[in-house]
Amino acid sequence: MHNSVDAALRDRAQRVIPNGMWGHMNVARIPAAYPQYFARAEGCHLWDVDGREYVDFMCAYGPMLLGYNDADVNRAADEQRAQGDIFNGPSARLVELAELMVETVAHADWAMFQKNGSDATTTCAMIAREATGKRKILVANGAYHGAVPWCNPYPNGATAEDRVHLIRYDFNDVASLERAAADAGDDLAGVFVSAFKHDLGKTHEAPTREFAQAARRICDKSGAALIVDDVRAGFRLHMGGSWELVGVKPDLTAWSKAIANGYALGAVTGNDKFRAAAGRIFVTGSFWCGAVSMAAGLASIRKMKEIDAVGVMQRMGQRLRDGIDAQAKAHGVKLQQSGPAQMPVILFDDDADRKKGWLFCSEALKRGVYMHATHTMFLSAAHTAADIDRTLDATDAAMAEVARQFG
Amino acid sequence: MHNSVDAALRDRAQRVIPNGMWGHMNVARIPAAYPQYFARAEGCHLWDVDGREYVDFMCAYGPMLLGYNDADVNRAADEQRAQGDIFNGPSARLVELAELMVETVAHADWAMFQKNGSDATTTCAMIAREATGKRKILVANGAYHGAVPWCNPYPNGATAEDRVHLIRYDFNDVASLERAAADAGDDLAGVFVSAFKHDLGKTHEAPTREFAQAARRICDKSGAALIVDDVRAGFRLHMGGSWELVGVKPDLTAWSKAIANGYALGAVTGNDKFRAAAGRIFVTGSFWCGAVSMAAGLASIRKMKEIDAVGVMQRMGQRLRDGIDAQAKAHGVKLQQSGPAQMPVILFDDDADRKKGWLFCSEALKRGVYMHATHTMFLSAAHTAADIDRTLDATDAAMAEVARQFG
Repeated sequence: MHNSVDAALRDRAQRVIPNGMWGHMNVARIPAAYPQYFARAEGCHLWDVDGREYVDFMCAYGPMLLGYNDADVNRAADEQRAQGDIFNGPSARLVELAELMVETVAHADWAMFQKNGSDATTTCAMIAREATGKRKILVANGAYHGAVPWCNPYPNGATAEDRVHLIRYDFNDVASLERAAADAGDDLAGVFVSAFKHDLGKTHEAPTREFAQAARRICDKSGAALIVDDVRAGFRLHMGGSWELVGVKPDLTAWSKAIANGYALGAVTGNDKFRAAAGRIFVTGSFWCGAVSMAAGLASIRKMKEIDAVGVMQRMGQRLRDGIDAQAKAHGVKLQQSGPAQMPVILFDDDADRKKGWLFCSEALKRGVYMHATHTMFLSAAHTAADIDRTLDATDAAMAEVARQFG
Repeated sequence: MHNSVDAALRDRAQRVIPNGMWGHMNVARIPAAYPQYFARAEGCHLWDVDGREYVDFMCAYGPMLLGYNDADVNRAADEQRAQGDIFNGPSARLVELAELMVETVAHADWAMFQKNGSDATTTCAMIAREATGKRKILVANGAYHGAVPWCNPYPNGATAEDRVHLIRYDFNDVASLERAAADAGDDLAGVFVSAFKHDLGKTHEAPTREFAQAARRICDKSGAALIVDDVRAGFRLHMGGSWELVGVKPDLTAWSKAIANGYALGAVTGNDKFRAAAGRIFVTGSFWCGAVSMAAGLASIRKMKEIDAVGVMQRMGQRLRDGIDAQAKAHGVKLQQSGPAQMPVILFDDDADRKKGWLFCSEALKRGVYMHATHTMFLSAAHTAADIDRTLDATDAAMAEVARQFG
């Protein structure tokens, strides 16, 4: 049985975990051939529990920016752990990491740390409300800002009141943003914007300069906080924060996934206008000052800068994109590649049910490449030209199969 | 300067962290002699950044149940990390840990995992609401269930709507619990109870059998979820869950601090009645399936059982309690020691402003013992009779100083 270990674990999980698995890593809604359980990872290579190896383009849904099990990051973590991780207060790593974030992130005068992306976005919402004394938060239709009740994409387990102060707009639609701000009246606390539009199953879009400036203008005029959710994209597009690309500085930024290369960490950075409010809210967690994850964060950010990780990921992402475009043309398959090259999504034309997309990914999976048909994918700085070329061998065969089945 | 490294870090922190530090580890409201920053920890011993050593009775506010830097837990974590931590899905450690929680925790038919205690309590609230289709949640006055807006102890950054469905009762007051349930009418989703009453600065109280049974009866009658918040007390009172001591099984339990001996992990356990609802909510986090923290959790739970950690902590806590009682009598100082021996709080009589309490703790601190005057303290299984006796030398001198200054 080619997936017998995975199948046995799924059976055991059904007994002791509701629905067998929760959240975004549940493979129940993607093709059956996808493994649920993994055994090992190194660089951009991933092994499932049945021993199959993959070149990975999900990077654990984002965190592994320098590649799995990065030796430099692990060394820094180990040195810290020999001293200790959590204590009755923080370690010096807290101050060093806050200093490094302030030095690195263009808009940042200060930083705070958490564990989850949802911790970071929730903390931003709290700071915005505390600073302004107002309640309304604008969020884009289809945007994902976390899985806690106020921003959860699903209604289950939430009350209407959890979201009563959210007002929706459409990303990159200035008129809809202005309408939403007008709806908030004089009760506008903050405007959440994703680093770029990376909604599940949708064409990814960079923010237009016009949209970013409109968001900035609305916040300047009302005193509301402009909040960039950089949880997914942070440090993959620009070391100074993703909106540096569009030349607009947010008031607050939520960070998490890639800041410590897989060690659990979240962060909020902010400017001086929101410093006092950030100091008045009570937010905390038992593990938020863990020095090991902070040491990993320090090592990760330093290495990302040193090796120009953004540049590496862009070049490797572009090599993949160019190769797939050529294959699509050669096989007469129409598709759209969108998102920054280092955070791509590949959407086939006339594929509302994503059958072509999942066929393509499943055929690539068979040939040792782990891709996703609807979620943002992620390059890492550990992807080499050889990895991309091996990937393109697999995708060429996958593209041929799409052409064969869908003509 | 005896605290010059700490002072320098505090200065640097003021520049890059709002208010210098956030949350429960901010020492701004405790005596100035308390260090903010720590450098090292081992067993029950803690070193601040200026090199002073302490016998520690806070255990990083709970997590360090087996002692700091436990070699067995670290070994399990290291073995896992050599393979990998987070992947595109969980590792087999997820299933093994869910199985071990179900085997260990009396009421549990299933388990789910998170990172923070607040993640666990929030997930419980979501499951309760999803299962019942109802909205009201009962919580005790003064109880702490996390730092996110719905349960945050402070109003800052929250809206009225975040807490509009909470109804308050007094812990161990059956009549007030019944009134709160009546107020919820037919809209009762869940009843939160702390493992025991461990409110900040208050006498700690075990739940009475009458109270626990009333909570169970109200939930049985209404279909609401009885939710034990075992984040602070979990695995310190009873390996099967803290309410085993009072003979009442909850529907859901929130866990976090001590389940992986300092590695960041949260958990929810539940019974079959709430399994389907738990499988319908969308909760997730980038690091929730981290295999290293799960390997640490497996090793921690196994070791806690193997060495009877609960028994060790009880004996050492009782040795401390007996010693302090004798010292109080000898010095003619009146005080109350409450809470389980392994999670004590020491409150001096006629001490509304906690001046006696903090004098006592500050004098102990000078002599190398880290205690807290208002928060629950924590024994670990690494505390030895020699550590307690060394502590009692310090507390005897501290008690003498309280007697001297306050008569």
